[in-house]
Amino acid sequence: MRARNLALVLGEVSRNGPVTRAALAEITGLTKTTVSKLVGDLLESGMVTESPPPADADRSRGRPGVAVRLRGDRVAALGLEINVDYLSVCVMDLTRTVRLRRTQAVDNRDSSSTDVVRNLRDLALQAVDEAAAAGLSVAGAALAVPGPVDPAQGLVHSAPNLGWGDVRPADLLDLPFPVLVDNEANLAALGELWFGSGMPDFLYVSGEIGIGAGLVFGGALFRGTRGFAGELGHVVVDPGGPDCRCGGRGCLERYAGQDALLDAAPDGLLDGLIRRLTAGDTRARAACEQAGRALGTALTSAVHLLDPGTIILGGIFAPLFPWLRGPAAEALRHIRHVVPNFAVAEAGPDAAVLGGAGQVIQQVIADPAGHMPRATAGLQT
Amino acid sequence: MRARNLALVLGEVSRNGPVTRAALAEITGLTKTTVSKLVGDLLESGMVTESPPPADADRSRGRPGVAVRLRGDRVAALGLEINVDYLSVCVMDLTRTVRLRRTQAVDNRDSSSTDVVRNLRDLALQAVDEAAAAGLSVAGAALAVPGPVDPAQGLVHSAPNLGWGDVRPADLLDLPFPVLVDNEANLAALGELWFGSGMPDFLYVSGEIGIGAGLVFGGALFRGTRGFAGELGHVVVDPGGPDCRCGGRGCLERYAGQDALLDAAPDGLLDGLIRRLTAGDTRARAACEQAGRALGTALTSAVHLLDPGTIILGGIFAPLFPWLRGPAAEALRHIRHVVPNFAVAEAGPDAAVLGGAGQVIQQVIADPAGHMPRATAGLQT
Repeated sequence: MRARNLALVLGEVSRNGPVTRAALAEITGLTKTTVSKLVGDLLESGMVTESPPPADADRSRGRPGVAVRLRGDRVAALGLEINVDYLSVCVMDLTRTVRLRRTQAVDNRDSSSTDVVRNLRDLALQAVDEAAAAGLSVAGAALAVPGPVDPAQGLVHSAPNLGWGDVRPADLLDLPFPVLVDNEANLAALGELWFGSGMPDFLYVSGEIGIGAGLVFGGALFRGTRGFAGELGHVVVDPGGPDCRCGGRGCLERYAGQDALLDAAPDGLLDGLIRRLTAGDTRARAACEQAGRALGTALTSAVHLLDPGTIILGGIFAPLFPWLRGPAAEALRHIRHVVPNFAVAEAGPDAAVLGGAGQVIQQVIADPAGHMPRATAGLQT
Repeated sequence: MRARNLALVLGEVSRNGPVTRAALAEITGLTKTTVSKLVGDLLESGMVTESPPPADADRSRGRPGVAVRLRGDRVAALGLEINVDYLSVCVMDLTRTVRLRRTQAVDNRDSSSTDVVRNLRDLALQAVDEAAAAGLSVAGAALAVPGPVDPAQGLVHSAPNLGWGDVRPADLLDLPFPVLVDNEANLAALGELWFGSGMPDFLYVSGEIGIGAGLVFGGALFRGTRGFAGELGHVVVDPGGPDCRCGGRGCLERYAGQDALLDAAPDGLLDGLIRRLTAGDTRARAACEQAGRALGTALTSAVHLLDPGTIILGGIFAPLFPWLRGPAAEALRHIRHVVPNFAVAEAGPDAAVLGGAGQVIQQVIADPAGHMPRATAGLQT
């Protein structure tokens, strides 16, 4: 009961900003005494703080009390990402402000899952230390991985671009707080929802070495039956096409993945490709044309099956948007009923770690009792 | 308030079968007097009837009252379907028993939408008359059409196989009760959910002249943003393939639609095809092989995007299941994470009209006040 009421009060404070104890009692239907006790617990846990009410406070009902608001300098969440060619981490506080971001370029294809996770662990612990130095205590983490994940079990079924099959990265990470594991595109889609465009219905397309998609309908992720929905990279573009690491043939990834695109860059780097595209280089433009057409073919299938609101291109597709959009949209042009618009992602390259950390903050606010800092040792149960 | 309580009581009667007034009061939290008044209204409307309690009734709390149960001989729903080569109608009573089914083979490709709907109107009015002769009053209808529908507006955006664009068939039908319009595969999926296998998570694939799909997750239809999800027939099997009526190229329909399959039958009829397949005819088997492989390619994309629980083959794919399953499953074999099973539809060829009528019955039970027979004239608002 206390846990439920703590969540009720903290949820109200999170949604409606600074709010007095009296208003909290009115909104929640709890007595003023109960609210005061709950606010006391939340103050002690460092999740909220009290400050003078805003200048426009309603004084008609007598002297307004001080207002309760989320506190940003005590409780934090960690966003983590393992991708094929980088590791990434961010620290986000309870007010959803990013306090630290760090990305390490590293080719994870030639390393074992144990080694990759050990490197991420180092990066994560360093971030936890820096957060601690700023007074922040990490309540939990979310880890994004490039492949289908069973989120209930934290099991990465396969991440073919990493050469992973049936890995439980949270076990290997062994951090002193709970770590949820999810697909990179799913968390990036949440990042776009909360820290980017904020549209309620869209298909977020994440262009990396692999290509994934996160489907947001009515402001919530659509996960399918087992949590594996949105594997856009393995939609068939040509059943007679080249073999894919996934075991299939002619998958979208083979035509529009980062490897196929950066093949047209002299140094194999995105910056080099963009320089060539800007300069009008024929080979670079042809690579984008081919990738855009393949993307349009796969999206034609996706639009027919999913009916997304908007198609948002993220990852490396965001900086390449000006060159990909035309050929992709051309392929979709034939659909008779409404075709969704294309938009460029606004959450930036850190979308997945932002979405991951944001999801942990959402969980803390939904269950403050289960995340009180003094109970840190008990959090892993 | 009365409308809400009527729905509460009727919902309980529908879910839990014969139930006494005393039990209804206990379950709903309403007073016995209120329950008696509500049951009286439902009795008068013909939606329920009273009968002696079941033999195993709990007599420990004193003499049990008579039990209230759904009444099957007064209120009915109409399921309607317009497909490319047939019209279909069924009458279903409030206990979800089918009272009448009728299908008319007719090629609707050469007729205007007005003529097609007029033929369906004749069929529907005849069914309404026959239902009336049996004492049944039709409370509403659901119409299945082969193409993407905006169900909120009852607008068929395009049914390329019928040559329809932006048609409102309910207006043309002009029946004396409300008519909801939905995509054929969506209603067939509901038919399979309620009158077939009853599994909670599946992709229902409807093989007709066109190919559609209805996605059921957690016992509910997934419709996408605008209601257009599940257009499996226009998933791209080969971007360099033949033109499709939809405006695209190499769509699944061109390889596995009824026209492609029955091309291998001497008389162009399904029965003839099955006879040839059973006899081991090479051309018939090759047609099924090709259709099955194309179906497998499109389903590979669908599985990656949607992660359905089971793939259920319906329409003409049900009788052809023994010959389609192998090549389709072979194409899906490469997916590394769990691949859904194939199953044959159990709701039969009338799945769409059954699902449509079932949806109307569900609406009546959810809002009995809005469907009281004496208020028939007011129903069209």
